[in-house]
Amino acid sequence: MKRLGILSGSGALPVAVSAVHPDALRIVFDDVAHEMPAPVEQHSLNKMGGIYDALHAGGVSDIVLAGAMGRPALNPAEFDAGMMALAPRLLPALQGGDDAILRLMIASFEEQGFVVRGAHELLPELTVPEGLFAGPEPSDAALSDAKRAMDILLALSPLDVGQGAVVAAGLCLGVETLQGTDAMLGFVAQTPERLRRGKGVMVKAPKRGQDLRVDMPAVGPQTVHNAATAGLEGIVVSAGEVLLLEADATRTALDETGLFLLGQVL
Amino acid sequence: MKRLGILSGSGALPVAVSAVHPDALRIVFDDVAHEMPAPVEQHSLNKMGGIYDALHAGGVSDIVLAGAMGRPALNPAEFDAGMMALAPRLLPALQGGDDAILRLMIASFEEQGFVVRGAHELLPELTVPEGLFAGPEPSDAALSDAKRAMDILLALSPLDVGQGAVVAAGLCLGVETLQGTDAMLGFVAQTPERLRRGKGVMVKAPKRGQDLRVDMPAVGPQTVHNAATAGLEGIVVSAGEVLLLEADATRTALDETGLFLLGQVL
Repeated sequence: MKRLGILSGSGALPVAVSAVHPDALRIVFDDVAHEMPAPVEQHSLNKMGGIYDALHAGGVSDIVLAGAMGRPALNPAEFDAGMMALAPRLLPALQGGDDAILRLMIASFEEQGFVVRGAHELLPELTVPEGLFAGPEPSDAALSDAKRAMDILLALSPLDVGQGAVVAAGLCLGVETLQGTDAMLGFVAQTPERLRRGKGVMVKAPKRGQDLRVDMPAVGPQTVHNAATAGLEGIVVSAGEVLLLEADATRTALDETGLFLLGQVL
Repeated sequence: MKRLGILSGSGALPVAVSAVHPDALRIVFDDVAHEMPAPVEQHSLNKMGGIYDALHAGGVSDIVLAGAMGRPALNPAEFDAGMMALAPRLLPALQGGDDAILRLMIASFEEQGFVVRGAHELLPELTVPEGLFAGPEPSDAALSDAKRAMDILLALSPLDVGQGAVVAAGLCLGVETLQGTDAMLGFVAQTPERLRRGKGVMVKAPKRGQDLRVDMPAVGPQTVHNAATAGLEGIVVSAGEVLLLEADATRTALDETGLFLLGQVL
């Protein structure tokens, strides 16, 4: 890698990458909130050609897309030549999910000769490692529930559904769909008590074949608090494949709630 | 079949079976609500031996368990010899789901020489038939979403999860878990508008290998109203394998909401 380019979305992740790669070229975008300290170059997503040029001019060989980008409004009237060249593939991608747009962006950067890396490659310490991260040892029931939840995720994986599932005492209480982890945990929290027979666990793992460079599952303090509200015993994640947001705050949340967070090679 | 015995839970289904089999022996249970007209024999689920005896004495060859049984409280102090003989298998079943208890009941009746039938066998007209039951013709998008929802159900089926799923514009918005269809539709109804890209459909089908004699999926007017509140275009069910509760009221609900109900051989 000659030089890293950080295409920064919002949140702490691009800032953390930048701390480890202080000489990286930092690019931020119109209409995308960011916390990146100066110096940054600001670009428009309507002008991808300008972004390629800036990266080449900066001697960048490898790039990382880090942080949430939301769904920035594109304005075809402002497209530059680089963006116009993407247009035939852009419209179908806009019909798909956010992943489809990010996959197109990745493909376009690769076609320009850049190596696209995932933040987890650049900062392996930002993922949940193998073993008990914090909290009490998981019960046998929790480990058994985690296994069943993982079986459910594996079955759904070829269908591009399910980064998370909740199982309690063998009974499936939630499968993550488009609405995301917090919505699933909110749903589980509303389960009538008479239907429940155990605390249960949530398992989070990337789908098989999921491109971790664009869409990596993440857990953080909010996940822990939501899992506690849902009455769970703990959280099991695929070790090294799930981002750990705000490690210290996550540890505090685990202490406060009494939940465990376990990384397993799944 | 010499004579049918109806073991009646609550609701309209056992009453409908009884209308088609007026000479059936009708058995109702302590602590289980029922709408069955007289004559009925009332029994305690603590005394299964007594139930076997009553069925044999009444010349019954075939039985049907119809209607919701809930989870009646059992009192071991009142068990008769027939129930005591089941006890070693009863405790594990009580740890499982309601299905496990019903499966044990079915096995016990079969061991006593009775043929256990499903209400749908006795009343095929009580299931959603193949074809458009009511409402507008489904759009191509709806049929495509239904296919994807069915793929999701098939993937989960070996894991004993999922009698229902909602897909809209290719995106999975809900997978039915323990909490049931209405809970799933309530969850889908809360999906933020910005995440939605189409109306979508719900598909309901039994799990592969599911014993339709104990646990048959059902749709009715409430399902239609809940699906409408969730913003769906319609409902697709596995033809002949999903009970249609209150056909007239369901048709009215479809008229009122503009949804379709389609039976497909899945």
